Amino acid sequence: MSRFHAIYHVRSDARSIEARAQAIAVEQSVEMPLSAIEDQSILDEIVGKVEAISDLGSGTFAVRIALARATAGNDAGQLINMLFGNTSLQEDAVLQDAEFPDDVVAAFGGPNTGLAGLRDRAGAGERALTCSALKPQGLSPARLADLAARFACGGIDYIKDDHGLADQSYSPFAARCEAVAKALRESGAHARYVPSLTGDLDALRAQIAAAKSAGIDTVMVQPMIMGLSNFSRLVAENRDLAFFAHPTLAGAARIAPPFLFGKVFRMLGADALVFPNHGGRFGYTPETCRAIAGTALAEWHGLKPAVPVPAGGMTIHRVAEMLDFYGSEVMLLIGGALLEARERLTQETAAFVETVKGYRYG
Amino acid sequence: MSRFHAIYHVRSDARSIEARAQAIAVEQSVEMPLSAIEDQSILDEIVGKVEAISDLGSGTFAVRIALARATAGNDAGQLINMLFGNTSLQEDAVLQDAEFPDDVVAAFGGPNTGLAGLRDRAGAGERALTCSALKPQGLSPARLADLAARFACGGIDYIKDDHGLADQSYSPFAARCEAVAKALRESGAHARYVPSLTGDLDALRAQIAAAKSAGIDTVMVQPMIMGLSNFSRLVAENRDLAFFAHPTLAGAARIAPPFLFGKVFRMLGADALVFPNHGGRFGYTPETCRAIAGTALAEWHGLKPAVPVPAGGMTIHRVAEMLDFYGSEVMLLIGGALLEARERLTQETAAFVETVKGYRYG
Repeated sequence: MSRFHAIYHVRSDARSIEARAQAIAVEQSVEMPLSAIEDQSILDEIVGKVEAISDLGSGTFAVRIALARATAGNDAGQLINMLFGNTSLQEDAVLQDAEFPDDVVAAFGGPNTGLAGLRDRAGAGERALTCSALKPQGLSPARLADLAARFACGGIDYIKDDHGLADQSYSPFAARCEAVAKALRESGAHARYVPSLTGDLDALRAQIAAAKSAGIDTVMVQPMIMGLSNFSRLVAENRDLAFFAHPTLAGAARIAPPFLFGKVFRMLGADALVFPNHGGRFGYTPETCRAIAGTALAEWHGLKPAVPVPAGGMTIHRVAEMLDFYGSEVMLLIGGALLEARERLTQETAAFVETVKGYRYG
Repeated sequence: MSRFHAIYHVRSDARSIEARAQAIAVEQSVEMPLSAIEDQSILDEIVGKVEAISDLGSGTFAVRIALARATAGNDAGQLINMLFGNTSLQEDAVLQDAEFPDDVVAAFGGPNTGLAGLRDRAGAGERALTCSALKPQGLSPARLADLAARFACGGIDYIKDDHGLADQSYSPFAARCEAVAKALRESGAHARYVPSLTGDLDALRAQIAAAKSAGIDTVMVQPMIMGLSNFSRLVAENRDLAFFAHPTLAGAARIAPPFLFGKVFRMLGADALVFPNHGGRFGYTPETCRAIAGTALAEWHGLKPAVPVPAGGMTIHRVAEMLDFYGSEVMLLIGGALLEARERLTQETAAFVETVKGYRYG
C-alpha cells in the first residue's frame, strides 16, 4: 500500500497528544468513527496511521501521519485536501512538512526550467539574478512599458508585474503584454517581462496565449488563489514557459512556508518562488527565509531547483547582506525602492545590477 | 470613484495602529512607497484609504479601509487578492468583513436556488432540512450506493459525498454518480445525491457533465481549493444546479468565517454552506456559528439566502438543541453517527428525520 506522510506541529498537553494525533489521522482520511467502519481493508489501507509523536517542547508536538496515496489520486487540489483540508479549520495544528513517494512527485514533475533555465535565459552564468516590479497599478500599459524600458536599460534580468496587476480596465492584460514586450524589444536589453496571470482556468489560458503571442516566455501565477490543480494543469500544458509563483493568500502560519513554497509549489512547477524576506515589510524570520531557500534548492526527488526570490521592501543597501545570507543561487527583487528614484530609475537599477554583479562571495 | 471596503482586525498597540493601518492600505493597493508615485490620480483613486480605526480592547483594533473597485475587476480571485492577498502573510491581521457596491454583488449573483430552492427540491415546506454523508472513502461505488439507498429509505433529504471522495481509482466519479443515482431512483424516496467535485476547471466541468447525465442537480464544491474564480465560473455556467460549499482549506482564523462563508461563498453562488458546528470535532465557538448562520440568511444586496449546514461530529441527541439554536432555516448534517448504527442505518436515519420533522419551535 503506497502512502505519503504528513508532519503536523500540534499545540497540546502531553496527556492529550496521542488522542489528538489519532483524531487528525482520522480527520484527514475517513472522517468518521472507526467503530462504524465495517471493512478491514479500509481500516488497514485507507485510515491514516499515526507513526510517530515527538515532543518539541513548549507545548508543541511533531506528529507524523501516514496517509494512503490512493486517496489523493493525481490531483494537486485533492492532495492538499487530504494533507490539510479539514485540519486547516483547527487552530492547534500547522502542516509542517510532508514526504511523497517518487511517483507522486514525478507525476507533477517540478519546474520546467528552474534555476539553471532562468539563469540561461538571462545569460547570467553563475551569478545571482535580478528582478524588479511594474507598479503602481492604475498606470496604463504605455506607462508601464516606459517603466519596463527604463529597468531594462539599467540591465535588470526580470521585470515582473506587481501581483495586484490583473486584467483591469486601466491596464488590460493583452494590451499590457504587447506594450511591455515591444518596449523591451526596442530597448535592445536582455530583460524579460513576467506578466501576472489571474482569473479562472479559461482566463488563465487566454492570458498565456496573449503573452506567448507577444513573445513572452515567463509568467507569474498565484497558486493559492487560482487553485493548485489549475496551476499544475497550466504548467503541464506549457512546458516552454517558466513560472514565477507569488505567495499571495498563502497565509502566515498554518502551512509552513518552506513546505508550501519549497516543496508543493516547486513540485507543481514553480521555477521561481517569491516570498517575503526578513527585515522588510513582512514578519518572516531569518530562519524561515533560510529554510524556504534551502528547501527550494535542495536535491529532492530529482526535481530541478527553484530559485528563491526574497522580496517585500528590499533596497540596494541590503544587496550585500542578502547575498551573504542566500549565496548566489537567488533572485533579488527590488521594486518600490527603485521606483522611488523616479527620473533616476535607470541609473538606480544599474547600480543595483552592478552591485549584484560585482559582489564577491566570501 | 467606486470603492469597496475591507475591515481588518489588527493586533497592535495604540501608538502603532495608525501607521500599521496605513501600511495595510498601501499593501492591499499599490504595494509601494507613496513617495514614488508620480500620478495624482493614482494617489487619489487607486491607493487604499484608511477610513476608520476603532479600539476593540485587548490590543485589537478594527481598521476600515476603502479600496478601489477598479483594482478587483469582475474576478473573484482578484477580489480576494485585493482584500487579503499579501496581508494574509502577516500574523497580526484578520480579514473580518467587507462591504461591496451593489454592482459587484450583482455581477456574481449569489445562490442559484438558496434556502427556498433546496426546501422545494426536498418538498420540505418550512422545516429544517436533513443531510447525511457517504463515507468512508475506500468503498466502491456499489457500496456507497447501498449506503445511499439506506439513508434514502430513512427519509433523508440530501446525501452528500464526504469531501475526501474525489475521482479516485477505488470510486471513480462518474461510476459513483451512476450507481448512487440509480440506487436512489430505485428506492422511490425523495433523497438527492450531492457528489463532491474536485480537480482543475476542465475536470470540474467533466464531473458536472457526468453528474447531470446521471440526473443529478446538486453538487458540492471546495471553493478554497478550486479557486474562487473557478467556483464563480461554474455557478454562472450551471444556473440549474444547486451548490453546497465545503469549508476545507479555509483556515481557522485569518479570514473570519462569517464573512468568508456567509458573504463571499454566498455571493459567488453557494446555496448551502457546510461549516463546523460548535461542540463537535472542531473548535468554532457558538458565537462564530451563530454569526455564520445569521450572515448566510440575512437580507444582503437582494441575494437569495444560503442554507447554513452545521456539521462535524453531530449526533441525533443534539438535534433539538441545534434547532433551538439555529431555528428552522438550517440543514442538519449527521454523518458518522448514523453510519455507526451499521445494520440499523435506515432506522437510525428515520429517527433523525422524525426528530427534525417532529420538533416544535419555541
